[in-house]
Amino acid sequence: MDDRTGQDTVPDTPRRAGRLPGNRYGNRPTMKDVAARAGVGLKTVSRVVNGEPGVTPETERRVQEAIDALGFRRNDSARVLRKGRTASVGLVLEDLADPFYGPLSRAVEEVARAHGALLINGSSAEDPDREQELVLALCARRVDGLVVIPAGDDHQYLEPEIKAGVATVFVDRPAGRIDADVVLSDNFGGARDGVAHLIAHGHRRIGFIGDMPRIHTAAERLRGYRAAMEDAGIPVKDAWMSLGVTDPERVRRAAEEMLAGPDPVTAVFAGNNRVTVTVIRVLAEHARSVALVGFDDIELADLLQPGVTVVAQDAAALGRTAAERLFRQLDGTLLAPDRIELPTRLITRGSGELPPAD
Amino acid sequence: MDDRTGQDTVPDTPRRAGRLPGNRYGNRPTMKDVAARAGVGLKTVSRVVNGEPGVTPETERRVQEAIDALGFRRNDSARVLRKGRTASVGLVLEDLADPFYGPLSRAVEEVARAHGALLINGSSAEDPDREQELVLALCARRVDGLVVIPAGDDHQYLEPEIKAGVATVFVDRPAGRIDADVVLSDNFGGARDGVAHLIAHGHRRIGFIGDMPRIHTAAERLRGYRAAMEDAGIPVKDAWMSLGVTDPERVRRAAEEMLAGPDPVTAVFAGNNRVTVTVIRVLAEHARSVALVGFDDIELADLLQPGVTVVAQDAAALGRTAAERLFRQLDGTLLAPDRIELPTRLITRGSGELPPAD
Repeated sequence: MDDRTGQDTVPDTPRRAGRLPGNRYGNRPTMKDVAARAGVGLKTVSRVVNGEPGVTPETERRVQEAIDALGFRRNDSARVLRKGRTASVGLVLEDLADPFYGPLSRAVEEVARAHGALLINGSSAEDPDREQELVLALCARRVDGLVVIPAGDDHQYLEPEIKAGVATVFVDRPAGRIDADVVLSDNFGGARDGVAHLIAHGHRRIGFIGDMPRIHTAAERLRGYRAAMEDAGIPVKDAWMSLGVTDPERVRRAAEEMLAGPDPVTAVFAGNNRVTVTVIRVLAEHARSVALVGFDDIELADLLQPGVTVVAQDAAALGRTAAERLFRQLDGTLLAPDRIELPTRLITRGSGELPPAD
Repeated sequence: MDDRTGQDTVPDTPRRAGRLPGNRYGNRPTMKDVAARAGVGLKTVSRVVNGEPGVTPETERRVQEAIDALGFRRNDSARVLRKGRTASVGLVLEDLADPFYGPLSRAVEEVARAHGALLINGSSAEDPDREQELVLALCARRVDGLVVIPAGDDHQYLEPEIKAGVATVFVDRPAGRIDADVVLSDNFGGARDGVAHLIAHGHRRIGFIGDMPRIHTAAERLRGYRAAMEDAGIPVKDAWMSLGVTDPERVRRAAEEMLAGPDPVTAVFAGNNRVTVTVIRVLAEHARSVALVGFDDIELADLLQPGVTVVAQDAAALGRTAAERLFRQLDGTLLAPDRIELPTRLITRGSGELPPAD
C-alpha cells in the first residue's frame, strides 16, 4: 500500500498515478481507507455502499465525500465470494472474426442484458485446449452460465463446473461425452436440400468442399450431401469431396482440382460461408459456367452475377435460443438437457439454378 | 451450504445437481471442504493448490483425490482480492455484429493471449449509458485494462478507474474530456482522398451519406468530404449531405433523394461499410450509372459489377496497436498518453472510376 499516495492526488493528473510501474495493476482504495478518511467505522461505510439503513444523512455525506475523493468502488469480486454469483455469462466462440458469429453473439448479449447479466466473450480459434482453458478461466471468474460453440469433442472437463451449478448450453455444435443442452441448425437436412436442388437442375457430377471432418457441422453437411446423392442413385466419387481447413489456398486448390481433369464437376456445394466466398472467386475466373449452392448466407450474395443460392441458417435465432435456455436453467425452470434443431432455408438467387455446362 | 450434497453425487448424474433451483448459482466446494475430506489442515491444501513445497507425496495424493472428488477449483476471485489482478482485459465494442469489429476484436484477443490475459468483451450498441455501465462492470470485475471503442463523448467517469491503475486505450474514436491513449484511422485524410478521387474522374455533384454526426469517425469523414470539395472549389449543397443512423431504410431514402430532383448527384461517397452495402443496392436498381467510393472495405466488393472502390482501414492493425499500447501501460514502459493515427488505403475497383453520367 506504499503507493496509495497516487490515489490521493487531485483528479487533474490521474493518468500519471495510473502509470507508476509500482502501481500498474492497481492498489485500489478499500472500505477501510474510506472509513479512515471519513472518520467512521467499517460497518458504517458498508451500510452506505450497500444502501442499508441506519446511517444519518450527515454521516452518509461524509462517507460519500470520502468515496468520491478516493475513487472507491464496491468490489464485486468480494461480493461474488459472498453471494456466489456474478450476473455474467460467458460465450465461447470459435472465431471472433467469422461473420457468422456476429449476429449470434449479439443475440446472446441481448438476452443476457435483458436478464441483467454481462456477456463475457472469447474465442477458441478452433483449438480444443484453448477452448478448455477459456471455459475454465470463465468458470474461475464465476460466470453464472456458459454458451459454448465447442472446438473439442470431449467436455467431461466441464462436469465439475456443471455439478457446481454453472448453467451450460452448447450451440452450433453438440457437446462431447456429457449430457448437455444443445441448439443446432439442421445441418444434415439443409445440405441434403441444397444438393437435391442442384440434382433437380440436372447436375450429377457435384463437388462438396467442406470444413475439417472432425467438426460436427462439416460432418453433418457431408452426410447430407451423400444422402441427396444416394437418394438420386448417383454414385459419389472420392475426387468430388474435399474436407479440410477453410483457408482460401486450400479451398481454391480443392475447387480447381474438381473443375479440372477428365470428369469435372458441373456444380459445387460449398460447406460454409468461408468456403463459399473462395469458391465464388474461383468460379468467377473459370471459363465454363458452374452451378453453386453455399451453406450459410453471405452479405451481397444477391448482387453478384449470378446471385448466390444459399442454404441459410438463422445465426441470431441460434444465439437467442441458446441464451434463453441458459437463463431457464439459471432460474430453475429447465430441468432436463435437450437437443434443439432449428430449420434452414434454401434461398434461390441464380447460381444454384444454372444447368450443367455440358 | 445445505445443498452441498449435490456436489458429492457420483459424476454420472451431474446435471441434475446443477439444475436444483436452490443450487442454481452454485455452492462450490471450498479449500475447507477439501481439507476436511482429505483429513489435512487448510494450509496443507493451500500448499498443494498453489504448488508450494512442504507437502509429502502421500499427503499431496490424498489432497488431490479430495480435490478431484469434490470438483474443487482454485477460486480466482479470491486471488484477485489478494493479488489485485485478474490477468484479463476488457474490450468494449459498439456492435458485436458489425463486420468491421471482427478483425479488430481478434487482433486484441491475440495480443491479450500473447500476454497471458483473457479477453472480456461486450458492446455498447452505440448507447453512452450502456458503454459506461459496461466499462464500470468490467472495472468492478478487476480487469487490468480496457480497450474502448467509445459511444459517449464524456469519459470523466473513468478517471477513478484510471487513477486506481486500470490501463485504458481508446480505439477507432477518441476519449472525451480525459487525457487518454487513442488509436485512430486517418478518417479525415481517407475521406478527403476518396472524394478527391471522384473529383479527379470528373464529378462535381457528389453526395455524402454518413453515420450520426456526434460520432467522431462520421464527423471526421464529413470534414474530409468538405475539404476535398473546397480544394476543388466546388460549393457544397446541403441536399448532397446526409448524416444519421445507418439502418438500410434511412440510407436508402437519403440515397434516393440525392439521385432524384433537378440537380442529382453523379457520385456518392459512403461514410462506412453499413452505408456502402445499402448504397450498392440502391445504385443496382438505379437507371443512370452513378460512381461510388465507400469508406471501409467490404467482402466480395471486388466481385460486384462494377467492383467497389473503397477507402480501406486496417481494422486488425487498429486492434493490435491499441492492445500493444495497453500492455505497455501495464508493464510501465508507456508513461504518456498519445494519439496514434493509422493511414487508410484507396483501393480502386471500378465504381469510383465511373465518369459522370451526364
